[in-house]
Amino acid sequence: MEKKIITISRQFGSGGRTVGRMVASKLGIPFYDKDLVNQIALESGFAPKFVEENGEQAPGLSRLSYAFAPQGVPGVMNGLSTADFLWNIQCGVILQLAEKGPCVIVGRNADYILKDREDTLNVFIYADKDFRAERIVRLYGESEKSPEARLNEKDKRRRVNYQHYTGRTWGMAENYDASLNTSVLGVENCADLIIKMVEDSKE
Amino acid sequence: MEKKIITISRQFGSGGRTVGRMVASKLGIPFYDKDLVNQIALESGFAPKFVEENGEQAPGLSRLSYAFAPQGVPGVMNGLSTADFLWNIQCGVILQLAEKGPCVIVGRNADYILKDREDTLNVFIYADKDFRAERIVRLYGESEKSPEARLNEKDKRRRVNYQHYTGRTWGMAENYDASLNTSVLGVENCADLIIKMVEDSKE
Repeated sequence: MEKKIITISRQFGSGGRTVGRMVASKLGIPFYDKDLVNQIALESGFAPKFVEENGEQAPGLSRLSYAFAPQGVPGVMNGLSTADFLWNIQCGVILQLAEKGPCVIVGRNADYILKDREDTLNVFIYADKDFRAERIVRLYGESEKSPEARLNEKDKRRRVNYQHYTGRTWGMAENYDASLNTSVLGVENCADLIIKMVEDSKE
Repeated sequence: MEKKIITISRQFGSGGRTVGRMVASKLGIPFYDKDLVNQIALESGFAPKFVEENGEQAPGLSRLSYAFAPQGVPGVMNGLSTADFLWNIQCGVILQLAEKGPCVIVGRNADYILKDREDTLNVFIYADKDFRAERIVRLYGESEKSPEARLNEKDKRRRVNYQHYTGRTWGMAENYDASLNTSVLGVENCADLIIKMVEDSKE
């Protein structure tokens, strides 16, 4: 079965977004990450920054409040929590994007949302903690918290969010078609490995 | 860091052994699987068939008994359980094999045993349950138990053994440098992906 949609789930700081962008660029297909977030935001009426910060949180960890919701939204939300409301919108947007044609989608549990499409290749990108710590300081700068604390916090958010919405354990190989460690294999090499998987699927 | 030793951990019926044999053959390096078991057996004095059946069991699940041990072994074992005694011998054999030069080692928790060697590439091979069920019936024939029951039993043994001796959770992507699903990617394609990883590591 030819793989046309590539989803990338990634640990914070692993270079997963970069891998996804490289794959999309080399294959000449659309790449959805922040653009996706913005589209979700436009549909929901939430501010893009708000969606970006809260779109990968599970309700339990969330500091969401109706106070941040756009005017009129509480009525539209039909009694759903803000997180569940966002989740529903994300599902709809991701299903529509996949319908439009070949693409790379990073994050947002797209692997799970598209689980009924056999033309989807689901990849998990991760890396050793030292590599990720060095990378987040280089790319996003220093902060009050140590790089390790920032990694632990983000990892926990994604783990809880994934578990909550998919019922699966975050980081288990079986959730994906392939898992690749960028700190061992190299970021660009991982992109090339994914491209080989896509090419092989055409045979 | 150039990867010279390739370890393959695999789900029963996933084709992991075949992938390992293909990688070794294409790279022209030794392949250790049953040969390894036999060597362990010779060193321990246990019968090869006995080692093969019990080498991937954890003590709790094991039906091992000193009654099966070769003459004189209980004294040599220094109070270790038979399973722990086998584990110690396995560690020694695998460390020696890796010292001898490039090779592919399938199973026996070699990924963990060689964790201090940076020239080791650790790969996890798995597959969807239907693919594995069809494969074990084709390769190993029917048995009294259903294919699903045989898979569940073997999976449980490997999971418990791995957890017991490594303290890690079996099947987590982070335990390995790469994880590949043969039922999605294809057995021979997985071998080629591993060869690409080895080639890339020389750059």
